Amino acid sequence: MVKWFIFGKPLHTGAVTAVDVKESDRELLKNYLEWEETDGGLCFSCRMKKKDAVYGLGENVRGINKRGWIYESNCSDDPFHREDKRSLYGAHNFIILAGEDRQFGLFIDHAGKLVFDIGYTETDRLAVTAPDRDVSLYVLEGESLTDIVGGLRRLTGRSYIPPKWAFGYGQSRWSYMTADEVRRVAKEHRERGIPLDSIYLDIDYMERYKDFTVNGDSFPGFGKFVEEMRGQGIHLVPIIDAGVKIEEGYDVYEEGVAGNYFCKTQDGRNFTAGVWPGRVHFPDMLKEEARKWFGGKYKVLLDEGIEGFWNDMNEPAIFYSEEHLQEVWEQMEDYRGKNLDINSFFALKDLITGISNNEGDYQRFYHEYEGETIRHDKVHNLFGFYMTRAAGEAFDRLCPDKRILMYSRSSYIGMHRYGGIWMGDNLSWWSHILLNIRMLPSLNMCGFLYTGADLGGFGADVTEDMLLRWLEFGIFTPLMRNHSAMGTRRQEVYRFGDTEAFRRIIGLRYGLLPYIYSEYMKAALGDNMYAKPLSFLYPGDERAKEVEDQLMIGESIMVAPVYEQNKTGRYVYLPETMKMIRFRSLTDREEQVLPAGDHYVKIPLDEVVVFLRPDHILPIAEKGGQNVEEVDFENLTLLHFTQTQSEYEYYHDDGYTKDYDNPAHRTMLRAGC
Amino acid sequence: MVKWFIFGKPLHTGAVTAVDVKESDRELLKNYLEWEETDGGLCFSCRMKKKDAVYGLGENVRGINKRGWIYESNCSDDPFHREDKRSLYGAHNFIILAGEDRQFGLFIDHAGKLVFDIGYTETDRLAVTAPDRDVSLYVLEGESLTDIVGGLRRLTGRSYIPPKWAFGYGQSRWSYMTADEVRRVAKEHRERGIPLDSIYLDIDYMERYKDFTVNGDSFPGFGKFVEEMRGQGIHLVPIIDAGVKIEEGYDVYEEGVAGNYFCKTQDGRNFTAGVWPGRVHFPDMLKEEARKWFGGKYKVLLDEGIEGFWNDMNEPAIFYSEEHLQEVWEQMEDYRGKNLDINSFFALKDLITGISNNEGDYQRFYHEYEGETIRHDKVHNLFGFYMTRAAGEAFDRLCPDKRILMYSRSSYIGMHRYGGIWMGDNLSWWSHILLNIRMLPSLNMCGFLYTGADLGGFGADVTEDMLLRWLEFGIFTPLMRNHSAMGTRRQEVYRFGDTEAFRRIIGLRYGLLPYIYSEYMKAALGDNMYAKPLSFLYPGDERAKEVEDQLMIGESIMVAPVYEQNKTGRYVYLPETMKMIRFRSLTDREEQVLPAGDHYVKIPLDEVVVFLRPDHILPIAEKGGQNVEEVDFENLTLLHFTQTQSEYEYYHDDGYTKDYDNPAHRTMLRAGC
Repeated sequence: MVKWFIFGKPLHTGAVTAVDVKESDRELLKNYLEWEETDGGLCFSCRMKKKDAVYGLGENVRGINKRGWIYESNCSDDPFHREDKRSLYGAHNFIILAGEDRQFGLFIDHAGKLVFDIGYTETDRLAVTAPDRDVSLYVLEGESLTDIVGGLRRLTGRSYIPPKWAFGYGQSRWSYMTADEVRRVAKEHRERGIPLDSIYLDIDYMERYKDFTVNGDSFPGFGKFVEEMRGQGIHLVPIIDAGVKIEEGYDVYEEGVAGNYFCKTQDGRNFTAGVWPGRVHFPDMLKEEARKWFGGKYKVLLDEGIEGFWNDMNEPAIFYSEEHLQEVWEQMEDYRGKNLDINSFFALKDLITGISNNEGDYQRFYHEYEGETIRHDKVHNLFGFYMTRAAGEAFDRLCPDKRILMYSRSSYIGMHRYGGIWMGDNLSWWSHILLNIRMLPSLNMCGFLYTGADLGGFGADVTEDMLLRWLEFGIFTPLMRNHSAMGTRRQEVYRFGDTEAFRRIIGLRYGLLPYIYSEYMKAALGDNMYAKPLSFLYPGDERAKEVEDQLMIGESIMVAPVYEQNKTGRYVYLPETMKMIRFRSLTDREEQVLPAGDHYVKIPLDEVVVFLRPDHILPIAEKGGQNVEEVDFENLTLLHFTQTQSEYEYYHDDGYTKDYDNPAHRTMLRAGC
Repeated sequence: MVKWFIFGKPLHTGAVTAVDVKESDRELLKNYLEWEETDGGLCFSCRMKKKDAVYGLGENVRGINKRGWIYESNCSDDPFHREDKRSLYGAHNFIILAGEDRQFGLFIDHAGKLVFDIGYTETDRLAVTAPDRDVSLYVLEGESLTDIVGGLRRLTGRSYIPPKWAFGYGQSRWSYMTADEVRRVAKEHRERGIPLDSIYLDIDYMERYKDFTVNGDSFPGFGKFVEEMRGQGIHLVPIIDAGVKIEEGYDVYEEGVAGNYFCKTQDGRNFTAGVWPGRVHFPDMLKEEARKWFGGKYKVLLDEGIEGFWNDMNEPAIFYSEEHLQEVWEQMEDYRGKNLDINSFFALKDLITGISNNEGDYQRFYHEYEGETIRHDKVHNLFGFYMTRAAGEAFDRLCPDKRILMYSRSSYIGMHRYGGIWMGDNLSWWSHILLNIRMLPSLNMCGFLYTGADLGGFGADVTEDMLLRWLEFGIFTPLMRNHSAMGTRRQEVYRFGDTEAFRRIIGLRYGLLPYIYSEYMKAALGDNMYAKPLSFLYPGDERAKEVEDQLMIGESIMVAPVYEQNKTGRYVYLPETMKMIRFRSLTDREEQVLPAGDHYVKIPLDEVVVFLRPDHILPIAEKGGQNVEEVDFENLTLLHFTQTQSEYEYYHDDGYTKDYDNPAHRTMLRAGC
């Protein structure tokens, strides 16, 4: 059901793994799209009917239905996820037109910039423009929207599966500065009985931001410290950045220079950018030998007992390039001592604020890729993908039977085989809870199943109620991490008054893990989605189609998080009769059957409600735990809403090895009337 | 019912006009608040119960219930009205604690900075801190929340009343550059039958941004042009900025220097800041003679036939000060040629981005006020108020019997006597529709009745559907203006596909004008609110208390705008049985009685629904018009939902003179079963 169309000489991105897809006759594309050469590039377009929805685009602003805005695939380090932003960190070039009278998916496999005008310029026109004109385009058809999503996965490969402990709760901060600070974070959780599986190490654990080093003063005896934390059931998860510090005597730098592993300027020098450590070189992640080398460096930390990583700054973010900074200094001289009016003053400001992530800088360096020298901007959207691929391939070599946690900030479809992503550097805004709710199924469509938001918000200041509400959604996301930025209010849950509520909500996550893990594994192994919009399950229901603040999580339940301040309830639309389960904690719960239709449901600040579908089962652990290892995945309580008979295929494995497809991991659970 | 408490030697702000208020015994304050000296200043606080709500604060981010955030009164030129912002353009130091077992209002009459921590640091604590410690504080009690609001108005004076034409639709852009461009805007509306009463002239109508000048090249024969537009039923509304360009030969500059009217540096020179024209001086709006002089300058434009103005940049916004800019140039030298790492690079960026509206600059200049020399930061929040007071007092002198349209960006309570405000430089964000819905009643509480948002959004790019939805709310706001910034997508309504829908929606405004104008006048004259939260009318209703996306507009109707993309309906909560009136246009409508409770109501993109209260009347014009003058305020259709008997006090006057209190303007309308 896949048709492949090629325009020009598109670069091989590595996204597609299917080997049996053949190029189709271009005439067939006319059944879906028109195309034309425009000044802006090669443009594919079609008209949309009034009720057509457009899904996909993974990590982006706005709704689940992407209609009514213009998006660009152009991986960007931009922490202000405002409604008017066109690009975030990832490039997820997959959309589904869910039309009144047709539906198909469109994967534009293209490493450069793409513009998706989805009813922005003209409300009834969908137009995808590739400025670079060399495009590989796949049209996917399917019986259902979910089936179309499955088609993309069959084309681009199975989604990444993390170790089971990575479904536990993680606590992060930019940064915990010392081992003692980490110990304190662990202690504060353990003393209060707040479950915790991981603590994250942001950039300051390194020695002056040098990848694959550990600051020996603040984290002395690192290997022993990792072991000490593991003894408390806690994994340390260090960050790895894209840029390698230029410093004589630093082995990674010296190896990179010696091996010719870094991106080059036009005249063949190693390209210099400024990031956290100041001046760095970027490993040429697209160059096979460089990738193999860089991936191999993770061994330094694996050998210390580390079992998980997050890859950051890999759009790649560039604070400044040496060359451009020099130009700016020179241009600034023109303004000195002048009467700065409206034009000149803002030009001066733009000069400075435009230093970072400057488009021009992405044209100043080059990759070696499959034997060719390619300017970075032509393959910009692949950098994060290939950095994470470097790690993923290395893990397969270094520890082939063990799952390693890996997620990235920047990404491209195809990277979903090697790791997850987090939803980027969001803000402590109520509207970002809703944004993250909407991003989850969109990312799932594009293959990214292991994902979640910085709960509580990364930038800006959180409030206690916001953190609680965000966690109440976060307990349903595969990646569940509380993370916040330097300079913002501290947001570890024990910093607030009502620790007891936090303990119960996070504790509930652990009780739900048998279901969450089982659903994740079934989605990953079955090329399915873990979280779906209601419209994917109830395609004929016009009301369900407009619901974008409720999600289907797995096959059995619907969630409807509260994402507004000072609210003790919300409206919920039920596409069918469901059983509402109100959790005050894992064990303190209440059930009520609600008929299909509209309901106003009370949801106090410290409670969670889920809606169970008829003839479905929600298996929960009889006993949660302080970390994933303590959770009892064997003895289950089957919450069910049985009208005739309820069945549930339960996936359960050891969570750490890779014998995924063993049928012994699947058991059929049943609950009768 | 007002108690007045004085701490230290507070500066007289001019907010309070009541002459009969006496200072109360400080012991009485203990019934409401504790106070203590803290490092941060003088702090007033109390505990809040779980269900207590806090209202007020006028122009600010977040909900109608302000609980759960920290706000600062510190007039700021900041176009990014993000959820985490603490200050916008105004300082509206009035809150109401609407408690489970008590309710009172609090007006802190203080010209410097104030911090309102409303359950941010501790969820159950309200704390107001005045860093400057000299505070005049009024506690207001009343029978109802509305009564408390009335108390503030009786204390600080009656709200401003604009001419009736200012209730018509206005079209604005930064900027229409020439008279011909203005003519074209008029023509495009008139040709399509889209009503229009005013076109706004942003900064570019002036000669190089010089106040009270008109560019003779782009707007030749200005007086005649004003007349020409009036012949088409359209008022031109020019902007006036706070800063006066420094330019030899420019009369306003020279008069200001000669008269000693400008703000001074510590050593007595005229303070120089950079704004639109480059270097400017600020008139010392607080100095009586300077205010009189500056106000008198409006005559230049009044004499050309202008009947309305908007005052801008009066926080005052400062792009840079000459002194600080010099310091920055010097500090920058430290960074040149360095390896800029995390700390130094961001310090450099902050140096540049911190040039504008720099706190330090507000300490570099001085006012003469009531015989004293006062550093600006001590009276910062009064500047916009006094600029608009300058205009308002001048209008009273220059044309005592005529209403002149006047609204301002910056404001302080007290300014509501002299003009309205617009809701500041918002963005084309869907969430800003909701923000503006919530701001409306909050502003009304603080006396600002004549207000409205930049419909369609000022910054960022609008979409057709967003503009339609924003207008569907905008037809209920007293100020109804479409305004957008340079560099953004053009958003005059005729630029989009479905002009017909825009024509019908804006046309509906004109049909509703008899009600809107009558309700506005009654609210202004009766010290009441034009728009109320549901909780003000249904105080016992716990559900109504949490509704923040519906408003009571006047005494008869409730509105429930759609503010989300790709939605064709929404939930509406009815606190009592109401009659839903669906308007496809003024004349094409449908009525349906809905019982109290929750409803999901279909609201297609081009329709407006209102909810009529039982035994209330919504009088609408039988005939709308292309501008306010054409609307028939005499022949009314009475939409009503009569259960026993409906009465409505209809206020109707000529709309241009000031004989407000003439009882002949009030008629009782009745509708029987």
